[in-house]
Amino acid sequence: MGSLLVGQSGGPTAVINSSILGVFKEALRHEEITHIYGAINGIDGVLNERFIEVTKETSLDNWKTTPGAILGSVRLRLKKYPEDLELYEKIKEVFKKYDITHFFYCGGNDSMDTCYKINDYFKQIGYKCTVLGLPKTVDNDLVETDHCPGYGSAAKIVSTIMAEVYHDTSVYKKGRVTIVEIMGRDAGWLTAATHLANVYNNGPDLIYLPESAFDMDKFLEDVKNLYDKKKKVLVAVSEGIKDKNGEYILNYQNSSEGDAFGHLQLGGVALVLSDTVSQKLKLPVRAIELNLPQRCAAHLASLTDVNEAFKCGSFGVKSALKNKTGYMIAMERVANYKIKFVLKPLNLIAEQVKPFPTKWIIDGNKISDEYLDYVLPLIKGESYPKYINGLPVFAKIDKH
Amino acid sequence: MGSLLVGQSGGPTAVINSSILGVFKEALRHEEITHIYGAINGIDGVLNERFIEVTKETSLDNWKTTPGAILGSVRLRLKKYPEDLELYEKIKEVFKKYDITHFFYCGGNDSMDTCYKINDYFKQIGYKCTVLGLPKTVDNDLVETDHCPGYGSAAKIVSTIMAEVYHDTSVYKKGRVTIVEIMGRDAGWLTAATHLANVYNNGPDLIYLPESAFDMDKFLEDVKNLYDKKKKVLVAVSEGIKDKNGEYILNYQNSSEGDAFGHLQLGGVALVLSDTVSQKLKLPVRAIELNLPQRCAAHLASLTDVNEAFKCGSFGVKSALKNKTGYMIAMERVANYKIKFVLKPLNLIAEQVKPFPTKWIIDGNKISDEYLDYVLPLIKGESYPKYINGLPVFAKIDKH
Repeated sequence: MGSLLVGQSGGPTAVINSSILGVFKEALRHEEITHIYGAINGIDGVLNERFIEVTKETSLDNWKTTPGAILGSVRLRLKKYPEDLELYEKIKEVFKKYDITHFFYCGGNDSMDTCYKINDYFKQIGYKCTVLGLPKTVDNDLVETDHCPGYGSAAKIVSTIMAEVYHDTSVYKKGRVTIVEIMGRDAGWLTAATHLANVYNNGPDLIYLPESAFDMDKFLEDVKNLYDKKKKVLVAVSEGIKDKNGEYILNYQNSSEGDAFGHLQLGGVALVLSDTVSQKLKLPVRAIELNLPQRCAAHLASLTDVNEAFKCGSFGVKSALKNKTGYMIAMERVANYKIKFVLKPLNLIAEQVKPFPTKWIIDGNKISDEYLDYVLPLIKGESYPKYINGLPVFAKIDKH
Repeated sequence: MGSLLVGQSGGPTAVINSSILGVFKEALRHEEITHIYGAINGIDGVLNERFIEVTKETSLDNWKTTPGAILGSVRLRLKKYPEDLELYEKIKEVFKKYDITHFFYCGGNDSMDTCYKINDYFKQIGYKCTVLGLPKTVDNDLVETDHCPGYGSAAKIVSTIMAEVYHDTSVYKKGRVTIVEIMGRDAGWLTAATHLANVYNNGPDLIYLPESAFDMDKFLEDVKNLYDKKKKVLVAVSEGIKDKNGEYILNYQNSSEGDAFGHLQLGGVALVLSDTVSQKLKLPVRAIELNLPQRCAAHLASLTDVNEAFKCGSFGVKSALKNKTGYMIAMERVANYKIKFVLKPLNLIAEQVKPFPTKWIIDGNKISDEYLDYVLPLIKGESYPKYINGLPVFAKIDKH
């Protein structure tokens, strides 16, 4: 007996709400769970007792197809106990007050770290509460899992947009160099997904990931050769590409100019590259940064991804009720793409990054078709939101 | 008896190919049309005799749901006859060689001007060929028609993305100022469509169109007030906003800095505004330029728009067979949103721009709900492409 609490942390995706819904729906089936809470803005909501309570009467319509994070998110990172002592004690105090015996935290590497630390703290002080992590990230860079909820949907929209942009940019006899920037600070998984556009349509001619050292001269040479031949070039580039010395290409822009444009966060490498193409090759060029819309496109999510995210949540509740604690829900791929949900120790996952395999990068600027076997099952099926009068209808809650 | 030729000019949309398909499908039903041709890259294809021929055997699968312009486009503008004499005579020569008696040109203001000039030339030299314009533009700025094919689909994706971006940017207690830039050099129709996100979801707090003089101080004040209250602000801005002296806000950036980032074409006003917010208000800010993906999003087009675009094409062929010439196909809205297809003289349309009505702009930074009555029917219904293995499949032709 006891109550369940779920929160979310880090950047949103198109399917986080499906994971949270999976927790809620499964929890509602078990009478031994006395109350079901969602923390508003993750750990911040815990510290400030900002909860919503979910009962059989709560409307959970459209959660599966609503992007973002309905419960809200937070960027707070906990230091290792006994540092941040006050925060830990406040968490325990609130958990006791609400009789929380099952805690779930949905997020990426940092969130798994938070999960790990809270679980560790509870163990040390002997507080009985299961702590489980629910994976989510469009970056697909969590270790110990075949892939992450959020990635399939982001891969689907990014590859679809890439095929559309190809159609748009190929209409003139003499076109431009088009450079499309895709999210991925440390891992190139999402940028690699642009190669999917080459399966049935046309996609990028050149693809650059952080896992392969970027050489500006070679890039300019490749662009020039392709433009001479085709009179248009489509390039996909990860925001986090670096040169052989580990320097971000983004930093090639003079920092005072960078500031002038407000590019204080990582992002804007497409502008650096398009500037260089314009100056050095004197070719017409356009930079496109896909930006936030690529990670919240619930209007075209992967049905496989939506369903797997949901199942991560429900499997999590079942595991918690078996008193499993200190794990992340992970996915194992078995023959013919069946997914087995398993538990992996949080300490193996926290702060680790799974890079895109270099064996699937060809010549530093193309992706091997072997990657397609891995990714195609993840984008299968189309999840659409409900439309009324031509407009999507997303879920909302009252964030008092 | 005689042959039919159709071409396209100017920037692509999500539904041009549906208009061209409407021409082809209707033309195939009439045996008096001896050959049906598509000109590759518009007038350029005419001048160079680069045609595809369409017969009953030609596969036209997926044309309705393929973005861009399958036949290709061109930016060429004709001077008034007898200037560009050689070009006009070459066009006539090619038309005679292929026995073209019905010509269609699909495009925006400039293309209607081309249509008008060719029709005028044919009249002057006594060459018998009907010339009709098919409207298309995401800008919705053609006069003499209730709206333009291409606008409904762009309005639908822009408003959907805006609702998603709201969900993404509202997850933190303390968020950012997010400034989203939307296409529209001279007319704010597409930026106004972001207000649709406010109908069932949440959308932009502030909306700025070229039709209302932009005041930087007032903008900063509005952003500051909203941020103080809500800790996050969502702004939609048209690329073509100008101040009260008619100066583009885009030009507020020092031109040397502009060059450094390769922003040689119009675009990038969101960067100018985000820079100013960052410098003057010291608030966290993010600029998002929706860029090409907003005009070629066939993965979520308006079904109404796709079908109307098709009907423009078929109505055009029927009109041509009645020897109508020198007109653009236009749409009239009758009670309860029924659309009547009509013919409007090209000379009334060429080079004209229909601005967004200022009566629907409130305080220079909001859109009136009266606009919703106008726009809601245009975005009705969802048109999706065919997917195989999770990927959209678009049409292609061999552009020899």
